[in-house]
Formats: sequence, C-alpha cells, structure tokens
Amino acid sequence: MSENKISSTLLSDAVDQMSRLPGIGRKTALRLTLFLLKQSKEEVRQFGQAFINMREELNYCEICNNISDLRTCPICSDPTRNHSLICVVENILDVMSIENTRQYDGLYHVLGGVISPIDGVGPGDLKINSLLDRVQTSRVSEVIMALSTTMEGETTSFYLFRKLAPFDLRISVIARGINFGDELQYTDEVTLGRSIKNRQPFNPE
Amino acid sequence: MSENKISSTLLSDAVDQMSRLPGIGRKTALRLTLFLLKQSKEEVRQFGQAFINMREELNYCEICNNISDLRTCPICSDPTRNHSLICVVENILDVMSIENTRQYDGLYHVLGGVISPIDGVGPGDLKINSLLDRVQTSRVSEVIMALSTTMEGETTSFYLFRKLAPFDLRISVIARGINFGDELQYTDEVTLGRSIKNRQPFNPE
Repeated sequence: MSENKISSTLLSDAVDQMSRLPGIGRKTALRLTLFLLKQSKEEVRQFGQAFINMREELNYCEICNNISDLRTCPICSDPTRNHSLICVVENILDVMSIENTRQYDGLYHVLGGVISPIDGVGPGDLKINSLLDRVQTSRVSEVIMALSTTMEGETTSFYLFRKLAPFDLRISVIARGINFGDELQYTDEVTLGRSIKNRQPFNPE
Repeated sequence: MSENKISSTLLSDAVDQMSRLPGIGRKTALRLTLFLLKQSKEEVRQFGQAFINMREELNYCEICNNISDLRTCPICSDPTRNHSLICVVENILDVMSIENTRQYDGLYHVLGGVISPIDGVGPGDLKINSLLDRVQTSRVSEVIMALSTTMEGETTSFYLFRKLAPFDLRISVIARGINFGDELQYTDEVTLGRSIKNRQPFNPE
C-alpha cells in the first residue's frame, strides 16, 4: 500500500492534513483519519474545532510568555506563589515538567528557545529583553537558570548571566544531576525536582 | 511528566481531543498539539476543517458502499471498467489495496465487515442484501470473494456462497497465496495482485 489511491478528495485532503503532523506517516494518517470517519459528526466537529479554537484564542502570558487563556497566566496571577523568584526555561513543556515536580513555588520566564547560531536563533529572537524588564521593574531576588545542559543551553545561560550580573540579585542554576547533553523535558521528575532544590550560584568556568 | 498540568483549558482541550486518536498517548498528543500551535492560524484552520468537512460531506457510493464525494463512486461510474465483475471486500482499505495492484478492472462491493458472532456482527449488519440486489438487477457474470482468510472471513465467504449459488454466475475466491490468518490490508502488493489474477472457483468441500 505504498501510494494509496483514495477515491474521495474529502478523505484524501483529511489524510494529507493528518500526515503533516510530525512522525505521522501516510499509512498511520489514513488509519487515524478512518477512525475519525467512524465517529459521530458532533465528535469530529469537536475534534477539528478544538485545534482551531486553540490557535485562534490562545494567548501568551504578557509577563512570563507561558501559554494562557487570559492575558496573565494562572502562575503569574497566583498571589500564593513566591513572586521574587524567576525560573528561566526554554519552552512551555519545561514549565509543565517543573510544575509536575511540586518542588518550586516561584514564577517562570519562558525564553522561547536557546541561542543557536546554527539554527539562526540569536538573542534578539528570544524573550530576553522582557526578562531584563521584569528584573528591573519588580522585586526579583533570584533568577534560576533551568535551561537544557546542551551546548546551546549553556551558551544561553552564560549570555543571560552577563546581562543579569549588573542587577542586585542572586543568579543560580539548577543542580547538575542531569547528564550533559540531556534535554530538560525528558528528565525524570525526581532528578529534576532535586536539581531545582539543590540549585547553585551561577559560576561561569 | 506523568500528569501534565496544562495552564490553558484551550490547550488541554486540544490535547484531550488529540489523545482520543488510537495509539496516540498523552505525551505524543501534547507534542502534536504544540506542533499545531506553532503553525499559522490559516494552516490550523485548514487542519481542523479538513476532518469536519470530511465527516459532514463524505458519501458512500449507493452502488458499492465505497467512500465517495458523489452519490456514485469514481470506480462504479467509470465506463472503461468491467461492470460484469464484482469483487467483494470487507472495507475501503481493501479497495485501496486491490486498486494499488493495478491487476483488477472490475467493480467492488464493500461489505462493511465480516460476520463475527463474538463481536455481535450478523449478516444483517453487512451490505449483503444490496449485493444480492446488484446480482439480480445488473448483468454480473462473476463475483470474486476477497475477504480476509480469518475464521470470520471464511464464514462470511461461505455464507455469501450459499446466498449467491442460486444465481447464474461464477463465484470465485482470490488465490490462497495469502497465509491463513493474514489480514488482507497488510498483504504485500505482489502477493495480493497475483492472488487476484489466479482466483479460483469457490468450492466449499
């Protein structure tokens, strides 16, 4: 079944869309689409609309850049959290991973990636200026770097350290229980939770 | 990342919908949904709408029960095909598989399954009456059984043979190059094409 002849453009359009998802080949796309075809019209409408609604209406928190239904995310607007602590992460999956450890009660700052000249990502492509704004305008006592321990993550941590050094605050980095080369989002909860608790002062070289 | 806390109901709704697909776990669903979140609004609208349109507008051919954009599928309405030949298959994937062999130029009849008392599927749940109608009302010279060589497929072939026996037509079955227990849709094209060409008269002992 290499090249399927699909006798309906409606079906083949749906299969084309499904196979645009990363890691979903043509055959899997066909199987998933035929599964949807067996569901009720109402169920399929809910399926399709969920993604459209998400893309149309989802906001990014204007403080920390985390995803949010409102202009400010539930974490930034939670008065019981420690607002003097900012944990800098690459993406929203990292926020979820750290939240799952239940070891951290401060705020976050989602950079939107790491500096990577090979991928054409420079400091200007990341939410670095808004981090510096937060540090200047609100009472932040500590910034925790929780970037991946890859070359790009380390470079970004070092860049941020230089930008943050002039301010009167502690700069720390999550403990290196994590192997060099690991991506944060795939780290187990125990290791990740412990490395947040045992964070150390940032000390380049 | 066992139970993800998702800070947005719009995102968590979309992830819930994605994880309803068979074989897609929560973590994969999150990854696929975040991929969609990075696409343009227009692309995501096309993604969601493709499935809604398919489910709302897709028809089943009123002759052979294959999926179709129109009331009659492109195969049944093709005058260059041999209209005196009907190949009986379980589902639309089987039609696609046989079409891919380019060895068959007759028509199809999609049963919609096989008789399976364990799954509560009886003859009345399949498109058997419409097959008998076709045999009675149009000039059909041969019916080819191309059901899976499982117990249920064999039972269904035998049931159809008894129903078709009174009519003046040849009843054949695709050659058993296929191992007993194999599902038709997973058979390689060469074997499947050869077994269509070498079909044999149906002969239940």
